[in-house]
Amino acid sequence: MKWEDLSSEPCLISRTLAVVGDRWTMLILRDCFAGVRRFAEFQAKLGISRTIVAQRLAALVEEGVLQKNAYQDRPVRYEYRLTEKGLDLYPLVLGMFEWGRKHYPMQEGVPVIHQHTACGQDFHPVTTCSECGDEVTARSVKARSGPGLPDGYRAA
Amino acid sequence: MKWEDLSSEPCLISRTLAVVGDRWTMLILRDCFAGVRRFAEFQAKLGISRTIVAQRLAALVEEGVLQKNAYQDRPVRYEYRLTEKGLDLYPLVLGMFEWGRKHYPMQEGVPVIHQHTACGQDFHPVTTCSECGDEVTARSVKARSGPGLPDGYRAA
Repeated sequence: MKWEDLSSEPCLISRTLAVVGDRWTMLILRDCFAGVRRFAEFQAKLGISRTIVAQRLAALVEEGVLQKNAYQDRPVRYEYRLTEKGLDLYPLVLGMFEWGRKHYPMQEGVPVIHQHTACGQDFHPVTTCSECGDEVTARSVKARSGPGLPDGYRAA
Repeated sequence: MKWEDLSSEPCLISRTLAVVGDRWTMLILRDCFAGVRRFAEFQAKLGISRTIVAQRLAALVEEGVLQKNAYQDRPVRYEYRLTEKGLDLYPLVLGMFEWGRKHYPMQEGVPVIHQHTACGQDFHPVTTCSECGDEVTARSVKARSGPGLPDGYRAA
């Protein structure tokens, strides 16, 4: 399989990775959630080439994850903002933070504290069941084939 | 920044990506959660070179995400199983599935259905607040600097 073929795999994880699984893309999205909007700031924060930043931003715009808007006329300058589809990636961003917090803690303490504005408390994310509301873990989930699974594939 | 420097960034998302953000690694982990354990099966499922599979598996073993055990003596054959640390990646895998389900649905229907064995119902994952139990979204979270955030960094 080639990386370019991921988006047509009969696997929803592959399809997600086809969009956000690229090396620098998740870091660009992290910066988007931190409020970064302008090309120069993305580039300065990541310290990678303009070409890589430009390609990744263009791909995210094409997929509807980011929206590109002119914020200035002469010269024209653009900013990149998360769309609703992009905001839906937040559980993934939080999930990565949480795994890092648990398994790669920093000596100085956490770099970021998350507050749930609805209840006012600092929190960590918990993945729960939409039906009963309890936490779900790898051990409490059973996967079975759905209608979209081709023969020879295994449910995950 | 170079990809190799990610693990020393003062960012827990970077540190997670340093371990699982590599192109094929998340797909290998997906297969681990689907019960794949043997080298030949990883390779057959992904259709990528032996070298890539071997490198990714070795890196995951080194990080303690997978455990490598001999399951046969002559010739020696190994299997790879998720450790507790590896199982902790399940929210990420589910989160990727969920984003794909919502934004890249398949015409034939979902390929996989997840059942929460604790309550017996088919479910989708919901990311919730550890304190109040309600759903958290990008819009209901405020991030602020923690003790580990160096000057000049922005909380995300």
